[in-house]
Amino acid sequence: MPSEFELIARYFKRSASCAILGPGDDCALLSPSQGMALAVTTDMLISGVHFFPDTDPWQLGWKALAVNLSDLAAMGAQPRWALLAASLPCANETWISSFSAGLFACAHQYGVDLIGGDTTRGPMNLCITAAGELPVDQALCRGKAKAGDDVWISGQTGLAGLGLAHLQNRTQLFEPLLSRCLLALHKPIPRIELGLALQRHQLARAAIDISDGLLADIGHIAVCSSIDVEIFLANLPPLPDECEPALARICQLSGGDDYELAFCAPPSKRLYLIELAESLQLPLWRIGNTVTKKEVHKSEVRLIGEDGRPVPITQKGFDHFA
Amino acid sequence: MPSEFELIARYFKRSASCAILGPGDDCALLSPSQGMALAVTTDMLISGVHFFPDTDPWQLGWKALAVNLSDLAAMGAQPRWALLAASLPCANETWISSFSAGLFACAHQYGVDLIGGDTTRGPMNLCITAAGELPVDQALCRGKAKAGDDVWISGQTGLAGLGLAHLQNRTQLFEPLLSRCLLALHKPIPRIELGLALQRHQLARAAIDISDGLLADIGHIAVCSSIDVEIFLANLPPLPDECEPALARICQLSGGDDYELAFCAPPSKRLYLIELAESLQLPLWRIGNTVTKKEVHKSEVRLIGEDGRPVPITQKGFDHFA
Repeated sequence: MPSEFELIARYFKRSASCAILGPGDDCALLSPSQGMALAVTTDMLISGVHFFPDTDPWQLGWKALAVNLSDLAAMGAQPRWALLAASLPCANETWISSFSAGLFACAHQYGVDLIGGDTTRGPMNLCITAAGELPVDQALCRGKAKAGDDVWISGQTGLAGLGLAHLQNRTQLFEPLLSRCLLALHKPIPRIELGLALQRHQLARAAIDISDGLLADIGHIAVCSSIDVEIFLANLPPLPDECEPALARICQLSGGDDYELAFCAPPSKRLYLIELAESLQLPLWRIGNTVTKKEVHKSEVRLIGEDGRPVPITQKGFDHFA
Repeated sequence: MPSEFELIARYFKRSASCAILGPGDDCALLSPSQGMALAVTTDMLISGVHFFPDTDPWQLGWKALAVNLSDLAAMGAQPRWALLAASLPCANETWISSFSAGLFACAHQYGVDLIGGDTTRGPMNLCITAAGELPVDQALCRGKAKAGDDVWISGQTGLAGLGLAHLQNRTQLFEPLLSRCLLALHKPIPRIELGLALQRHQLARAAIDISDGLLADIGHIAVCSSIDVEIFLANLPPLPDECEPALARICQLSGGDDYELAFCAPPSKRLYLIELAESLQLPLWRIGNTVTKKEVHKSEVRLIGEDGRPVPITQKGFDHFA
């Protein structure tokens, strides 16, 4: 049976070229580049809450890091460093080896060094803290949207939610949609290049990654920016064929676990954004716009139907204590 | 029932004066001062592993942050920022309010801003990531000790271990020792001022905080510095009266959860360290010294008895998967 320290040395210690000091000491040491601020975020993934206990460990390793990098993407930061605190029920080396491979595959893909962490025995819980760099004052904060902005989203929301519904026997999907949805659920792609392009070329004012559901997360932008948002049903990405349309719509609007970006940009940036979508080969959908608040003390997201009337919203997103 | 976002707003969002952007966005933003590197560390506390489920929430809040600050102290860093990822079984506001008060008491005491985090429902698990600042190249790394250094420890190790033994009915303590041991266990004091003084005045070469047990943690310095260490039983702090001496000795050497600092310093620094102990009102004990390795491929910590002979070591420290 390997010890805690052997496990760390075997599976989680790789050279950390971007750090001053990597894993193995009381702290890791790092230094952002001249003139850069550090963006930091932390996300916890819990067995039975965020993933099924029998989830493929490679995909889990990928996802645990990817969901954190998604937060960096939503600020427009360049990912650099990560720490992993892991509570594992036992030292199953086959599992740990595969988890570590998935984690480092994601780290390698996005240029991230694992610089430290903590390993302990307990109920399965994976907590990653990720840090990236960006120029001070150029972050895509949630509170910077202005009335009159366009609201955009990348890719397609709802696929992960459909995959989850299938796994929970709430619907039955068939190939090829099934594989697509399970991939979206298990191996999300953090939109790093998009976030960086939005930040560097100042194409967006505000951004958020869609983890709790499209409407809920756009709601966070609305509250932080003190605006209302109108989303047009007709402008949303088309729903996938060959699945229940009502469920597909609910997942699209409030499924969560999507890790696409939603962002607000002035209308003057439309052409640049269409070009950016082409160069990244990533669809960008202009789904609505921001407006002055109707009520002083409340920010609202309104869903507008094809007849121009508001559609009632019943299920906005995921709240862990609701 | 408050929502996840209401809980965060109510109990975990305070102004973060040292951060560029505090809680409430995808990432927090911070920037170390000119010429400073960032020291980062993460530690996970799990109910049933690191603490009893009925632990006082105020003390738990204090300890969750304090154990992370202890890692910063062991590098000689000035604590600045922290993130909290918490998995809680339910939204018990009395508990959360008290936990938050303990956490912020510790944060306030050591000048730390809580800049972000993640809250979710699941088995109780508290994962804090802390970051501090220190001048590049002045960190008290584990690997910088040299043969011929003195080995020092601060305060008294073993009290937390004795307190734990009492709570687990492995021994029975009486007042006033009982309160002292329970306080050491539940409200550890991170040795921030000591770490900073060692770093700023270059009084130590290498340091570590004693979380896994004195011998085990000094063993980490030995391995990283590629030296052997000799600890003299006669030089250890006196054991507390009114408890089983054998158990007290085991706790002193391998109890863990002490959060004192062990450090290696050249003999030329002895007078400065004695003065430092006085000015900090914190006892510093010179318990041994480092020597050239006996075996090429192994670093060893030897415990030397009063007769000058090695004492067999059976229980070195805590390993989560042993």
